[in-house]
Amino acid sequence: MKRSLPVLVLLISLGTVLCLAQTDQPAIKDDFKPSALNQPGQEYPQVNSQGYARFRINAPQAQSVSVSLGLGGRGGTQLKKGDDGAWVGTTAGPLDEGFHYYHLSIDEGTFNDPGTLNFYGSVRWESGIEIPAHDREFYALKDVPHGRVQQILFPSKSTSTSRRAFVYTPPEYDKNPAKKYPVLYLQHGWGEDETAWSTQGHANLIMDNLIAAGKTKPFLIVITYGMTNDVKIGGMGSFNLQPFETVLVNELIPYVDANFRTLSDQPHRAMAGLSMGGMETKSITLKHLDVFSHICLLSGGTISADDVKNTPDFAKKVKLVFVSYGSRELGGGPGGPGGGRGGFGGDPKANAEALKQAGINSVFYVSPDTAHEFLSWRRSLHELAPLLFKD
Amino acid sequence: MKRSLPVLVLLISLGTVLCLAQTDQPAIKDDFKPSALNQPGQEYPQVNSQGYARFRINAPQAQSVSVSLGLGGRGGTQLKKGDDGAWVGTTAGPLDEGFHYYHLSIDEGTFNDPGTLNFYGSVRWESGIEIPAHDREFYALKDVPHGRVQQILFPSKSTSTSRRAFVYTPPEYDKNPAKKYPVLYLQHGWGEDETAWSTQGHANLIMDNLIAAGKTKPFLIVITYGMTNDVKIGGMGSFNLQPFETVLVNELIPYVDANFRTLSDQPHRAMAGLSMGGMETKSITLKHLDVFSHICLLSGGTISADDVKNTPDFAKKVKLVFVSYGSRELGGGPGGPGGGRGGFGGDPKANAEALKQAGINSVFYVSPDTAHEFLSWRRSLHELAPLLFKD
Repeated sequence: MKRSLPVLVLLISLGTVLCLAQTDQPAIKDDFKPSALNQPGQEYPQVNSQGYARFRINAPQAQSVSVSLGLGGRGGTQLKKGDDGAWVGTTAGPLDEGFHYYHLSIDEGTFNDPGTLNFYGSVRWESGIEIPAHDREFYALKDVPHGRVQQILFPSKSTSTSRRAFVYTPPEYDKNPAKKYPVLYLQHGWGEDETAWSTQGHANLIMDNLIAAGKTKPFLIVITYGMTNDVKIGGMGSFNLQPFETVLVNELIPYVDANFRTLSDQPHRAMAGLSMGGMETKSITLKHLDVFSHICLLSGGTISADDVKNTPDFAKKVKLVFVSYGSRELGGGPGGPGGGRGGFGGDPKANAEALKQAGINSVFYVSPDTAHEFLSWRRSLHELAPLLFKD
Repeated sequence: MKRSLPVLVLLISLGTVLCLAQTDQPAIKDDFKPSALNQPGQEYPQVNSQGYARFRINAPQAQSVSVSLGLGGRGGTQLKKGDDGAWVGTTAGPLDEGFHYYHLSIDEGTFNDPGTLNFYGSVRWESGIEIPAHDREFYALKDVPHGRVQQILFPSKSTSTSRRAFVYTPPEYDKNPAKKYPVLYLQHGWGEDETAWSTQGHANLIMDNLIAAGKTKPFLIVITYGMTNDVKIGGMGSFNLQPFETVLVNELIPYVDANFRTLSDQPHRAMAGLSMGGMETKSITLKHLDVFSHICLLSGGTISADDVKNTPDFAKKVKLVFVSYGSRELGGGPGGPGGGRGGFGGDPKANAEALKQAGINSVFYVSPDTAHEFLSWRRSLHELAPLLFKD
């Protein structure tokens, strides 16, 4: 596990590079509107219908202001000071649809854009911007019954504290006091935390909309922090999975089963994770096939025929292997043909095929025109949910 | 109502002025530690055992960096650039115990401190710092059973959207599927939102600890956004209470009663609010004494004998009037003797006494050595909770 982690960090960096759609640059349309993630009343940053982003930062005495988002990633977008003392600039090209983290560089210091809400990524609270996706309806806030996102504080002896998790309960949960539900344990990526999936991930809205449309069974989603031992890290070289595995398997799962109405057997328990969370998912599920029956890796590795071979009773115990990537992670982006670069040890599509040939319920999904970013993972959850807990 | 609102905005400003304890300035002890509200792994800002705060901001090419917190409020603390390019400075005096919002001024622009978590106040996400209070145990995260903070999205026809609220349910709530609970509706102040009470307010931990100690009845707390029509405001002159009153009374309360196990009659429903939320509480409860039986104003007005006289059946319907202030709001601070300045139309202590004389259950609480800030309100909730819903 340890050896492959630096590759992942590299890929996270590449995500930034790859977040620009490759198009001949058209004239920039003058239909900019405030990003949906702006703080109340804030006019900037703005996004136009082509996906260009425009920033405006007030700092009259600054020497230089730039934004980490932009063509090529490195250096991002340099802003220029206008007559009114505000620094303004537009990305050199359209950004990919969906959610992007970013930050400002002001006089060589790193700060957030005071115009936007903040989202935890890169081991810090970052600015966020949303380029409206053509398929955004599936995670939109709609007039349908809404489930709840419940913050729980569960006791953790192994870390000598109460730890936070969020539990999504479907809209019907409190209406059916006798019914029990399957559970998906869902992990964030490197540098993110347990807030990611229900804020930038919209996991709750994705589920509300799927359930309202009758497209998925209702189930619980449990989200907690997966970098248990390692909040100060600058990289992943020193990352140790064991503390998180203990918290998840020995502490959180028993707590959830004791405090929510769950179907607490292996067939009704799934684990999924994005990026580093996918690696955690693979490592933990393969060690605990008595606990989990569904293995779901979102931009975070694959399950190979060798993995199956090396894991006793894999075919008997595993009900689903789901692997997904953003298309730009797989070699279609400006980084050149990736040849399975996103696969962390193998071509994910070929691996998924091999599992299918071996009679395993294996699903491979590619999110169109997205990179190592949250629109890939929102779409992946949307594809994944209807496949879970089929009897 | 409208006429008294500018007074409140003034008082919020004075809160900043008053947040420095008045002491002969002792030597500054060199025992600075990272603030409890820093982002993971961040060393600055730091706080020492006397309550001084020290800031460190990396911005090598900046012309000037200051912090809004500090002696006198105006201008705050000017930082000085060190040889390593980082700007460093310490407040000129100790800050009051508890939570303080602040922000940076960098080259005449307003930004957050990248070292800290952010908290919604002043109609924006601000930096926050915590000066450990001598009585902080009552809101500490302890090894006791924890309730949940449940995010709900409730339908609001009057505002044509689903609106967010947080519902605190006590630890026993899911263990007693037949039991019903009273409800406290709890409002934030001007420029804050529905996140305030369960983050900087620690309302859930205050309740968990009180319940574990057997000091309060378990009840639900419902927290939603109270500036319904007015997210862009710079002041409160244009504030209109009616949209929020409609959301709360006609939409949120029926939703909560339909979706949680509540005691849904007037004797088991309380309303409390801080600052502007106190004014909302007063205005809404006096109009709806068929809905609420407990009126609780935290640094947000008083109930006078005239209010009682002008409200039909007040004495018969109201089970508790609770009014509280921070001591520095009442004239004990550097602003000089206030003569009931915090009272918004009367000396709050005298008003509370007059109500008691009239046979009304009236409680007046003063938080020692705090101003118009969250430690006053944490303490007020801690005093208030045991007084609610006594049969």
